[in-house]
Amino acid sequence: MSVKFTPQEMNYFLDEIFPQVKGTFVVEELTESGCVMRMPVTDAHLRPGGTVSGPSMFGLADVAAYVATMGQIGREALAVTTSCSLDFMRKPEAGRDMVAHATLLKMGRTLSVTDILLYSEGQAAPVARASMTYSIPPRKT
Amino acid sequence: MSVKFTPQEMNYFLDEIFPQVKGTFVVEELTESGCVMRMPVTDAHLRPGGTVSGPSMFGLADVAAYVATMGQIGREALAVTTSCSLDFMRKPEAGRDMVAHATLLKMGRTLSVTDILLYSEGQAAPVARASMTYSIPPRKT
Amino acid sequence: MSVKFTPQEMNYFLDEIFPQVKGTFVVEELTESGCVMRMPVTDAHLRPGGTVSGPSMFGLADVAAYVATMGQIGREALAVTTSCSLDFMRKPEAGRDMVAHATLLKMGRTLSVTDILLYSEGQAAPVARASMTYSIPPRKT
Amino acid sequence: MSVKFTPQEMNYFLDEIFPQVKGTFVVEELTESGCVMRMPVTDAHLRPGGTVSGPSMFGLADVAAYVATMGQIGREALAVTTSCSLDFMRKPEAGRDMVAHATLLKMGRTLSVTDILLYSEGQAAPVARASMTYSIPPRKT
Repeated sequence: MSVKFTPQEMNYFLDEIFPQVKGTFVVEELTESGCVMRMPVTDAHLRPGGTVSGPSMFGLADVAAYVATMGQIGREALAVTTSCSLDFMRKPEAGRDMVAHATLLKMGRTLSVTDILLYSEGQAAPVARASMTYSIPPRKT
Repeated sequence: MSVKFTPQEMNYFLDEIFPQVKGTFVVEELTESGCVMRMPVTDAHLRPGGTVSGPSMFGLADVAAYVATMGQIGREALAVTTSCSLDFMRKPEAGRDMVAHATLLKMGRTLSVTDILLYSEGQAAPVARASMTYSIPPRKT
Repeated sequence: MSVKFTPQEMNYFLDEIFPQVKGTFVVEELTESGCVMRMPVTDAHLRPGGTVSGPSMFGLADVAAYVATMGQIGREALAVTTSCSLDFMRKPEAGRDMVAHATLLKMGRTLSVTDILLYSEGQAAPVARASMTYSIPPRKT
Repeated sequence: MSVKFTPQEMNYFLDEIFPQVKGTFVVEELTESGCVMRMPVTDAHLRPGGTVSGPSMFGLADVAAYVATMGQIGREALAVTTSCSLDFMRKPEAGRDMVAHATLLKMGRTLSVTDILLYSEGQAAPVARASMTYSIPPRKT
């Protein structure tokens, strides 16, 4: 399958459907096998000590899986998170952007499964890993 | 083991250590078997259609597990999330507070495991379930 | 919804569809909210020290979720495991049966979610917890 | 860190500590970044239709994470599974060996985290993915 959005088209699409988090996440790459997304870190993501909060990391992993999935099914379709697992392995670097590398492991008719590694920019070892399952409701025709 | 905080003491403690989310979460009950926490829903938590966002639900589950754990180990100790799993089962009701019922399943020397059910207030069936593992680093003495 | 099998009918059904594990698992209770299942512990489940193996505990949690789900959808339907999470919290007692208490949290059109607590018989604290998601393929008509 | 076993040494070690599953799993590669393990499929792993059972896949993922972890800490240490998540994505091929590719994402002082992809030999897309956390108890000195 080929991908149905350029990274720029996907960024516009995200701004359109999630206006309340506009600018929070940036699609850098998008292919049939997954995507790379950046979360520019601002004060809103931080916890004491300058570390990025858990909900912010969850949000980045979730949107990366959404982008990888929507890249395959196109903007007419819907996708909702049904389950996820996360392991938090290292403390994020203070003041560094977080970057998600998402790999689409399955793109089925009703479910997609995406694996995500989260990095503090410039660090070799991942900060966290996540798996996200999206359900794709049947389209009303 | 008995619990080391009243709900009010825990609310003060949360405001002290997480000032950036002050008022976001309210401890309503806290016992040795777990806690009940409320997240008053505001516009900041919402997605289109009035539904509560995934990161907000993750945040509520995470803080409920933290409160259940800290209730046992006391304020001198540390606890960090190491892993979690979540299942999103139903759409939250628009405009309703979310309430977490957390059960502390294990309080070990180095790890705690907490099960959390998330509800839209006034709805019988849970919106989501989560399990959270916290690691408790050894105290420096 | 009412339940479509008695415990005895479900035991016969399990023997019929999984003949290779006949007698491994016994349904003790089955209601619309879940089930109780027993795994009589034999040498085949054991690890050194007399503890029950991880795959045996996984198998018990998986079949308990299957039974809770099939109890609702009936024998004409299919259900396959799509995802699960497990936390292993305590060492099972050597030589004790394991008992699973399964709660059906969601019975949707295409997915079911079941929470399972696993106990060593006679012990108050659970040995493990699990969540299992089953996918229910559309019936061919 | 360098690895403390050759694949052959690790196979002997597995036979020694898990004699009841001798020959079930074979270490093919073992490096500091993870391992490759094979599970020769026999009738004991099968479900109706020739598919490999869930507990067998859990067992393969679990032992692959164990091998990746023990490869780093050596035979004097202990490691026990504390949590895992699995996604079952495709039906395994009947009559084909299963092969696990395990990547050690974190090797900490008290916890290791390993990501595992499970394949039916000869198939390009993974059958399942898993994450396994092992706890490493402090050594008695």
